[in-house]
Amino acid sequence: MRLRVDLIPRDELIFHDVVLVVDVIRATTTAAAFLEAGASQLLLAPDLASARKLRTKGVMIAGEQDGLKPEGFDYGNSPREALEAPVGGKQVVMATTNGTKAAHLASKTAQHILLASLYNAHAAARLALDLAEEEVAILCAGKEGRVGLDDIYTAGVLADFLQLMGSFQLDDGAQVALATKSVYPDPLEPLRSSAAALALKQAGLEADIAFCAQLAASPAVPLLEGRTEKALVFRRADPVRNALVSSQSKLL
Amino acid sequence: MRLRVDLIPRDELIFHDVVLVVDVIRATTTAAAFLEAGASQLLLAPDLASARKLRTKGVMIAGEQDGLKPEGFDYGNSPREALEAPVGGKQVVMATTNGTKAAHLASKTAQHILLASLYNAHAAARLALDLAEEEVAILCAGKEGRVGLDDIYTAGVLADFLQLMGSFQLDDGAQVALATKSVYPDPLEPLRSSAAALALKQAGLEADIAFCAQLAASPAVPLLEGRTEKALVFRRADPVRNALVSSQSKLL
Repeated sequence: MRLRVDLIPRDELIFHDVVLVVDVIRATTTAAAFLEAGASQLLLAPDLASARKLRTKGVMIAGEQDGLKPEGFDYGNSPREALEAPVGGKQVVMATTNGTKAAHLASKTAQHILLASLYNAHAAARLALDLAEEEVAILCAGKEGRVGLDDIYTAGVLADFLQLMGSFQLDDGAQVALATKSVYPDPLEPLRSSAAALALKQAGLEADIAFCAQLAASPAVPLLEGRTEKALVFRRADPVRNALVSSQSKLL
Repeated sequence: MRLRVDLIPRDELIFHDVVLVVDVIRATTTAAAFLEAGASQLLLAPDLASARKLRTKGVMIAGEQDGLKPEGFDYGNSPREALEAPVGGKQVVMATTNGTKAAHLASKTAQHILLASLYNAHAAARLALDLAEEEVAILCAGKEGRVGLDDIYTAGVLADFLQLMGSFQLDDGAQVALATKSVYPDPLEPLRSSAAALALKQAGLEADIAFCAQLAASPAVPLLEGRTEKALVFRRADPVRNALVSSQSKLL
């Protein structure tokens, strides 16, 4: 089995099998939190305007503009808020920038796409391995075209979990992510040192960083199950439901 | 002063000041070795055909195709061979893939471009700091669009040397490179584990890896001084000649 880590999205990337998309501060953490809070589906919309169009009585929309909740949105992009949100049984549409772009890129070629973070790291790694036939790829979303220390660290944590469960041929990116992970004893440190954290601090949302640094606290893994005209549609797929997940996701 | 590391070339990258281009296995190591062997100038040609056209009595051409010396070329891309080559006072034209592309990308926007490797790491870091006014960027060439552990490790070594000489604001890429560097006690280890090394082993050129892993063994730093129609023209710029280098390079 191959394990690769792509440190930054590039249009030329081709995926063959399973992709774990990582935008740890905050999109992929928040996505898991919405599903943990009971959302029935999570849609990733490409931009704020698309999300606004999808808003109806039973559909909540969440997103960010300069870190904050955009006008007319139900929620921002805060995982703390997401976990407490009364979204049980409802669809949630998220519009964020980096994580959404990375997921859309992966969806062009991948067989299975999962949204991964530190928050659901163990469950996401487990499910990725369950689904994979030849390769697990971890795609770091980065921030506006630049690599993110927070995402690469998280990729290292995921790679570490995967290596506890199986044997992999590592590409150079995976070795860099594992090395980066091994340097920091506490997840808060690399997350706090990242450009993404700096932007959050400037928006007064520093408390979200500690939420995003929680390790393997949630079993909720968003798994791509289809798409609407513009948005990618994810639902919760716990590793224990693997057989079901596996057969259903083949319908994609 | 800012210190940034770009882990992979991307067309969108914009440089403002000094760029250290790193393709440690092998182009930027070999470039330093040719200058150390006495070459008067080093030209980076965009492809093998361009290099062939530049070949005349006083101009030697070097390059690689699948790791080996292309037909009609004077030299391959081996730093061991370069250091022993009778190129004193001659122009050498190099045609390689990843390092050349990265240098051409940097040359679109940078003020100063240096070719850096482990072999000339200390001299290159020193010269970069001497030339920089606001930012030192390290651009890792990678391998065919994918990151290279060898290049990111080398970027970490360069960043480490720079931090010994000054105080920098680090971007996320620099933190990842420094973390990667700190994990390996011996440069041979990350170099040997890289995809670039695997390709060299397959071509029977494993001995070049040990050459490329030499740390700060050479004071020869290729500095961009201009360009011909297609090629970038470098000459040797030792840090001790900094004042001269600095005034001349402004003529670019």
